[in-house]
Amino acid sequence: MKLNIALLAGDGIGPEVIEQAVKVSDAIAKKFNHEINWKPALTGAAAIDAVGEPYPDETHEICASSDAVLFGAIGHPRFDNDPSAKVRPEQGLLKMRKKLGLFANVRPTFTFPSLLDKSPLKRERIEGTDLVFLRELTGGIYFGEKGRRDEGETAFDNCVYTRAEVQRLAKKGFELAMTRNKKLCCVDKANVLETSRLWRETVQAMEKDYPEVEVSYEFVDAVAMRLVQWPNSYDVLITENLFGDILTDEASVISGSMGLMPSASLGADIGLFEPIHGSYPQATGLNIANPMATVLSAAMMFENFGLQEEGKAIREAVNKALNKGIVTEDLADGGTSYGTSEVGDWLAENI
Amino acid sequence: MKLNIALLAGDGIGPEVIEQAVKVSDAIAKKFNHEINWKPALTGAAAIDAVGEPYPDETHEICASSDAVLFGAIGHPRFDNDPSAKVRPEQGLLKMRKKLGLFANVRPTFTFPSLLDKSPLKRERIEGTDLVFLRELTGGIYFGEKGRRDEGETAFDNCVYTRAEVQRLAKKGFELAMTRNKKLCCVDKANVLETSRLWRETVQAMEKDYPEVEVSYEFVDAVAMRLVQWPNSYDVLITENLFGDILTDEASVISGSMGLMPSASLGADIGLFEPIHGSYPQATGLNIANPMATVLSAAMMFENFGLQEEGKAIREAVNKALNKGIVTEDLADGGTSYGTSEVGDWLAENI
Ligand SMILES: CC(C)[C@H](C(=O)O)[C@@H](O)C(=O)O
Ligand SMILES: CC(C)[C@H](C(=O)O)[C@@H](O)C(=O)O
Repeated sequence: MKLNIALLAGDGIGPEVIEQAVKVSDAIAKKFNHEINWKPALTGAAAIDAVGEPYPDETHEICASSDAVLFGAIGHPRFDNDPSAKVRPEQGLLKMRKKLGLFANVRPTFTFPSLLDKSPLKRERIEGTDLVFLRELTGGIYFGEKGRRDEGETAFDNCVYTRAEVQRLAKKGFELAMTRNKKLCCVDKANVLETSRLWRETVQAMEKDYPEVEVSYEFVDAVAMRLVQWPNSYDVLITENLFGDILTDEASVISGSMGLMPSASLGADIGLFEPIHGSYPQATGLNIANPMATVLSAAMMFENFGLQEEGKAIREAVNKALNKGIVTEDLADGGTSYGTSEVGDWLAENI
Repeated sequence: MKLNIALLAGDGIGPEVIEQAVKVSDAIAKKFNHEINWKPALTGAAAIDAVGEPYPDETHEICASSDAVLFGAIGHPRFDNDPSAKVRPEQGLLKMRKKLGLFANVRPTFTFPSLLDKSPLKRERIEGTDLVFLRELTGGIYFGEKGRRDEGETAFDNCVYTRAEVQRLAKKGFELAMTRNKKLCCVDKANVLETSRLWRETVQAMEKDYPEVEVSYEFVDAVAMRLVQWPNSYDVLITENLFGDILTDEASVISGSMGLMPSASLGADIGLFEPIHGSYPQATGLNIANPMATVLSAAMMFENFGLQEEGKAIREAVNKALNKGIVTEDLADGGTSYGTSEVGDWLAENI
């Protein structure tokens, strides 16, 4: 296969972890006879510094004309405590999601047996957890009209959803559930929000098309609780943008393997693949960041092209490294640890 | 003191747990020479059944003319999966909050040493946790304009906040922090939402009036993570209505003492006090529900009248019961357990 992959390293540790994912992907390409054409482009604070824009048009053109996007991380602390900053890296992210039509954010939470003890949860609570969130990513309160009135004294944000938006996300949810344990949980706040009632009635109407899928409806506050209590009771969860933002992050820390969690954002055409961890500014340039989440994001990318064997080869290399202790300091428990690029080299060699 | 207390037992186990809180409060009144005049009123599904309305005007008049409201729980499963039901118990709750002006929901999460092992979190993560959420309760997306357009195909919910609404909530937060560890965390999503930017800038402007309070600003998704990772790093957290709904429920399960957590909803005049657990329909009438959260809500009520000794006496009785194993089956670990009313009797006798 010939693959054009846009490479958006971004900020902080982004460039370091992306470099390792490139090494590993190139090793996969060599082994399985693919050709990858990497197309680097600017994004995030790095792009603001270079061209004054977090998601420049040129970057968009590169992404839009590629088969997939491999993404590092964005965000820089100098923007965080300045709510009035005119240009923020996050705007680039939102613009990118919208312009590339990436409406479904796929966020798995699973456990690695060797890392179970890193979880803040007791072993018996977390064991066997293997769930996936599908978060709607281009609608809701993120993209509704927002602003001020009364001379700045009143602020508003509008949350809007159409039935079609819910349907396309829910469809992916039902289909994903069919390939897994056939359980789907629709997370909403239908006891308060009209948008949630639209979500619930739309999913209810789709149930008949997937008679094998067992569908449940839970309020977002209840899910926030059950994720901590019984995370292994879930299979596939679908939800709107803001609830998904909160719950997927909550879900990510329960496993003890947060630094290893990949994600995908899918749309009609191309997909974007990125680790869930952020730009981790304090670690920038120190060669200590864990590249495995980004490497596993590359695995999701291959799998999304239908290249299951390739994805599996990456997952196996990561498992092997974990078992052999070829890990960065976050996973070394004070024992021998390796640098970001050493872990990347080892993984590439073991493909 | 002469106290008029509106008594809203509500649905499910509400009446049973409220009965115990009344016993205990009456024992306090006797011991400390107060006079409590209980004024029962209908709410929730019970009120819908009786008069077709979850928060009838008569109930409002009783509440508004009382010094405080003691509340059980509302909610009935027959309304849950019917998003189109015209009258829902939750509407009564929202109407009550709004009409009584209960803008600050106070939700402590603390630990009882004897219950630490009930937490889904590891002991070292949860030990020493003692945090309080102040959730804004009468604004935001709960009360903004909501509805449908395009013949029902599009739904919308509007989130609105004014600076004054943020200020009165934040003021309570700063004041509460001053009586505790002097740390205040403002939880928002200022990287995306305009209402959050208003929250952040308003709180920032108030910092100078409380120079001793150490203020931090965290995104709601980050807090959803840190609550599971390091709950004991928080002191007082302030946040808007919907974030508060999700995060306070998440916080409630981390302690292992969820069934014991009380809450208060405060406004300009009267306060409402209620356990955080719901109506627990499956347990209705079985005399197995744990009354301690409701009893501790009564303690918060006395403390809010400035009656600290009275509150303390209740807390001590609860601690004594826990240490002696005078508990309902949820806390009995398969050992001897007592009924709801027996626990209530024991607490009242031990005041
Ligand atoms: C940075 C921010 C805008 C973003 C979001 O809220 O979507 C992030 O939290 C995420 O989840 O990818
Ligand atoms: C029942 C529901 C409307 C309510 C809310 O969302 O406020 C409940 O979850 C709560 O937190 O008191």
